[in-house]
Amino acid sequence: MSSLAVIGVGYWGPNLVRNFMSLGAFDEVVACDRDAARLASVCQRFPGLQDCTDPEELWNRADVEAVVIAVPVRFHYDLAKAALSAGKHVLIEKPMTQTAEQARELVDLAEAKNLTLMVDHTFIYTGAVEKIEQIVRRQDLGTFYYIDSVRVNLGLFQHDVNVIWDLAPHDLSIVNHILQRRPKVVRATGQSHTDKDLPDVAYVNIEYGDSICANFHVSWLAPTKIRRMVFSGSRRMIVWNDLEDAEKIRVYDRGIELTRISKEQEYELQVGYRTGDVWLPNVARTEALRKVAEHFVDCCRTGKTPLTSGRDGLDVVMTLEATEMSLANAGHPVAIDGDQMSLL
Amino acid sequence: MSSLAVIGVGYWGPNLVRNFMSLGAFDEVVACDRDAARLASVCQRFPGLQDCTDPEELWNRADVEAVVIAVPVRFHYDLAKAALSAGKHVLIEKPMTQTAEQARELVDLAEAKNLTLMVDHTFIYTGAVEKIEQIVRRQDLGTFYYIDSVRVNLGLFQHDVNVIWDLAPHDLSIVNHILQRRPKVVRATGQSHTDKDLPDVAYVNIEYGDSICANFHVSWLAPTKIRRMVFSGSRRMIVWNDLEDAEKIRVYDRGIELTRISKEQEYELQVGYRTGDVWLPNVARTEALRKVAEHFVDCCRTGKTPLTSGRDGLDVVMTLEATEMSLANAGHPVAIDGDQMSLL
Amino acid sequence: MSSLAVIGVGYWGPNLVRNFMSLGAFDEVVACDRDAARLASVCQRFPGLQDCTDPEELWNRADVEAVVIAVPVRFHYDLAKAALSAGKHVLIEKPMTQTAEQARELVDLAEAKNLTLMVDHTFIYTGAVEKIEQIVRRQDLGTFYYIDSVRVNLGLFQHDVNVIWDLAPHDLSIVNHILQRRPKVVRATGQSHTDKDLPDVAYVNIEYGDSICANFHVSWLAPTKIRRMVFSGSRRMIVWNDLEDAEKIRVYDRGIELTRISKEQEYELQVGYRTGDVWLPNVARTEALRKVAEHFVDCCRTGKTPLTSGRDGLDVVMTLEATEMSLANAGHPVAIDGDQMSLL
Amino acid sequence: MSSLAVIGVGYWGPNLVRNFMSLGAFDEVVACDRDAARLASVCQRFPGLQDCTDPEELWNRADVEAVVIAVPVRFHYDLAKAALSAGKHVLIEKPMTQTAEQARELVDLAEAKNLTLMVDHTFIYTGAVEKIEQIVRRQDLGTFYYIDSVRVNLGLFQHDVNVIWDLAPHDLSIVNHILQRRPKVVRATGQSHTDKDLPDVAYVNIEYGDSICANFHVSWLAPTKIRRMVFSGSRRMIVWNDLEDAEKIRVYDRGIELTRISKEQEYELQVGYRTGDVWLPNVARTEALRKVAEHFVDCCRTGKTPLTSGRDGLDVVMTLEATEMSLANAGHPVAIDGDQMSLL
Repeated sequence: MSSLAVIGVGYWGPNLVRNFMSLGAFDEVVACDRDAARLASVCQRFPGLQDCTDPEELWNRADVEAVVIAVPVRFHYDLAKAALSAGKHVLIEKPMTQTAEQARELVDLAEAKNLTLMVDHTFIYTGAVEKIEQIVRRQDLGTFYYIDSVRVNLGLFQHDVNVIWDLAPHDLSIVNHILQRRPKVVRATGQSHTDKDLPDVAYVNIEYGDSICANFHVSWLAPTKIRRMVFSGSRRMIVWNDLEDAEKIRVYDRGIELTRISKEQEYELQVGYRTGDVWLPNVARTEALRKVAEHFVDCCRTGKTPLTSGRDGLDVVMTLEATEMSLANAGHPVAIDGDQMSLL
Repeated sequence: MSSLAVIGVGYWGPNLVRNFMSLGAFDEVVACDRDAARLASVCQRFPGLQDCTDPEELWNRADVEAVVIAVPVRFHYDLAKAALSAGKHVLIEKPMTQTAEQARELVDLAEAKNLTLMVDHTFIYTGAVEKIEQIVRRQDLGTFYYIDSVRVNLGLFQHDVNVIWDLAPHDLSIVNHILQRRPKVVRATGQSHTDKDLPDVAYVNIEYGDSICANFHVSWLAPTKIRRMVFSGSRRMIVWNDLEDAEKIRVYDRGIELTRISKEQEYELQVGYRTGDVWLPNVARTEALRKVAEHFVDCCRTGKTPLTSGRDGLDVVMTLEATEMSLANAGHPVAIDGDQMSLL
Repeated sequence: MSSLAVIGVGYWGPNLVRNFMSLGAFDEVVACDRDAARLASVCQRFPGLQDCTDPEELWNRADVEAVVIAVPVRFHYDLAKAALSAGKHVLIEKPMTQTAEQARELVDLAEAKNLTLMVDHTFIYTGAVEKIEQIVRRQDLGTFYYIDSVRVNLGLFQHDVNVIWDLAPHDLSIVNHILQRRPKVVRATGQSHTDKDLPDVAYVNIEYGDSICANFHVSWLAPTKIRRMVFSGSRRMIVWNDLEDAEKIRVYDRGIELTRISKEQEYELQVGYRTGDVWLPNVARTEALRKVAEHFVDCCRTGKTPLTSGRDGLDVVMTLEATEMSLANAGHPVAIDGDQMSLL
Repeated sequence: MSSLAVIGVGYWGPNLVRNFMSLGAFDEVVACDRDAARLASVCQRFPGLQDCTDPEELWNRADVEAVVIAVPVRFHYDLAKAALSAGKHVLIEKPMTQTAEQARELVDLAEAKNLTLMVDHTFIYTGAVEKIEQIVRRQDLGTFYYIDSVRVNLGLFQHDVNVIWDLAPHDLSIVNHILQRRPKVVRATGQSHTDKDLPDVAYVNIEYGDSICANFHVSWLAPTKIRRMVFSGSRRMIVWNDLEDAEKIRVYDRGIELTRISKEQEYELQVGYRTGDVWLPNVARTEALRKVAEHFVDCCRTGKTPLTSGRDGLDVVMTLEATEMSLANAGHPVAIDGDQMSLL
């Protein structure tokens, strides 16, 4: 018999339960939460779901093949370490851990024990990111210029992390994945208006090498919700508006044509526009979390490396740590080199 | 007899000519440009317009009461200095000069000679900025949080300045004016994709004190034109979309309600939304440049200090210089204290 | 003991079940459907829900106080008549019946038996309609001009009714309610592109008297979904876009100012715009069906007349019948006078 | 020597003057208007423009090769008849005449005298209509379903014609041109809210044969300006939003897939969506009136039939007359058969 356990059924956990149950890849799905009322309520919603109040019980159960960790980030490391040590495959919510050191340890442990360690960077599995990836892979953008992301709304959803830890993991995992690069230099500035310790408005600027730069504006104090990411290249540009229902992605066949003109004509434009059609590709509407679940099962069973591996989770956490260092140093740039980070 | 001369009738000059001619405040309007063909073309468009190919001629003409300088920025300082020295009032395009030192010298000279020195920060005279100013002045926003501006489009319009010098003067003059504050700390990062010396994508971050921060994203490499400025406060928030024809300004009666909740309920929200009506005030559609012209005449004739004085122009130039210093130092913050700037 | 039965748990029925169960106004909620599989599936979703496969059983159960009829429209009349005859209060989906004569008979029967007969014109209970009603009631629109509604999308959801019977009941119930008037003259044109008998694109034009007119465009063959209703008046105008999440209603403080000018100036405009602010009132987001359920219970228990009574349902059905007559007569106008309709 | 005269330089005339002058196809352009002040003002704006206050003078001038008629519609017929009689080619503003009989007479006269008679249906020369025509010609839409047009705004611009005569000529000329068909049955309803004789809100419904139908909503009493035309077909659908600056045309690769399902499954959908990409073709931004001027000159000089000939103008006027007949008969349908129209 083979079971999967979801630890933590607060906000996001029930979605994981629903998807793993409907997948039918496990004989049993177990929900584990210390809050008995919450556990009972989830079990009522999902007939057939098993319950468990103590994660410790899971480690010794031979049938538990894999564990999904959906508790607050400060508990990620201990639970994941225990699960891996007990020989369970692990899917862990984002951000993976509170420190890069913890993440690195989990990556090493999973590798040593030959277990799957996957991070739930859900956006990577959306139709939108898949479509953008296709377009970028076939070189449609020409030379990559920059990425600009705005991920803002009104309202804090977290009380123990700042707005960067809350929102920027999405941007980081997406951009790292699309560019197939890792951040080299990180800058962050932020202000705390509602809580003196935790920035609620921030800007993160990242250099990826070869003049490719990404800038993330994250905020809990914006009047309207915006989820907009621009990928600008020399031949085409993509705008991804994730709040659009039917037209999430726009590909602009548009660029700049440089023409040098003499100093004498200095009032004239020296650069021309090239304006072609705009294309709004149809984007698959499959639930991303369903694909996360399927992919996790596939990786557990075949040993293949997840699309969003522990290493990818570590990259994100390391960059988040770099934003902390930059924030603590008035926005000074922080270089990331392998496992090291240092103020520039 | 009283005349006004417009020096430079390339891209923007004809608009100045048109407005000053229709104003009727001067007996004659003179267009001055070294390019004879351009001069002839403008004179044909505006019957009655006088022409002149050498600015030197203007300095000695007793009838020339005031001069408008609408040539590339690198000629601003010499022309303005000559005009002020010759006793002429001066209206100068933005940015005022290439260096803060030049701007300071012009401010001092105008003061010494008791002449009007005004900078054409046109946006300050738009119905949109006037409306935002009204709303902010009557404290409708509550505690000021931050300003976020996106001023991007496709296409470079300048060949001798970078994208910050081209676009950010608008943001700076607007924010300084609305906040009635001067920048204290400036950070800038930028990349050059089309010209190795001049950044064409940049981010400028400014601290104004009391946790009030402004961030400007300027770009010549964006797929679509955006002119969007957000003013976020504790009680209300304003979004100004200057590309909207009829609905430029939106005032959101919206904010955050903080409620501390115990650690035990850690999955629950600790912050609530307050969502009220949205108000789209009707914005006056008068041409801003007409108001610039009227205000300049009024200042020349009455001696009153312009709404966009030489001092305001100097503030903008000094901040632009600070962005240069930050750009040259990997984005390190630059403090502005009075007339001094220094790396933090 | 008091029970409520929902007959028909296909597309819409489960929403009714959910709302009536969560209301807690009845000791038991019973789902009744001839399709055993569907019934079982609904019962699994709603623990505690009772099941029943034959409506006949319900008529004799003393505990069944009220019945909700959510089956295809061709079964409405028989079930409602049986329920009322058995002394049950009835809430019936829209459109109420297939013919005005059936609707009239049900209205009379409910009245004779002193039972509540309510039609589920759900939109009347939305925050949007409530807000529009408030604005209209306080005479903010000035003289009423006209109503224009566009309710189009891609895809047929019905196989036994045409697009007018499918979509226009919404428009009719809303406009009748807002105007507090009944249609006097009805015109309808339509084409059938996908099925030779049932129009899939149609236009319905209704005169309400005093020059007040409403026009409804309904279509199953439109490229994009539109749900937009305009209420135009001499002093203000309302645009309701139901697909907007946060900004459903816009009130334009805008109108026409008539000025007669002489024939000699015939090229000049004789009418001026008045353009003021736009106001986007915050609209309550309560689920309308919850309010339908609450109101139905309130009417059953207190005997008050429902906001969407059988009489209102009859008005809608009579107008639908008039559109049929007009469609069958090349779009000729059909007058409705009391219970009579005739070609003009 | 060859001259062209523009009769009427009120609202639209100066645009014709500007385009014909810049074209350089005539030695002289003459502006003719009875209003001396207006004439002087236009001559000042356009150096080199000749003036004339009496059209009669034009008829005898041998150099006047062609005449453009841009006066109110009630003067069109007399002026055009005089011009054609005097052997001048004629370009006439829309609508061509006040009655179909007048239009027919002009068409016959031009033919008899072998002169060019062209109507300024400007929209036919826009990049948008050209793009739509291309798409339709290559059968991309599949089977044509219907056209829906909304052409509404706030404000009357005419004092001697109703809203249909003011706005619907655009819709009629466009749809006739795209379909290459003539209206067969016409219905119109309208209300007069601001002037008791002239409808200011109207709906026009037109049958073009083969189940192809067009519906035009025109209004002077709408809160916001809308210029939106939908072309719906079985394989693709086009939405043309003429108020969009950069994205006027959207082509939806979208349609319906019909699947008959048994009566037993009556709650299920029987029709499926097909949703593909959306394509926003780049649309040429050339000024349409420039192309009108070029095409008129080309037709005058080569004898070719204009794209918007007198016959096309007559078709539009005849349909407008049919709307009058329908309006006067409570919206009854009016059949057009050749030159005859009759109530159905």
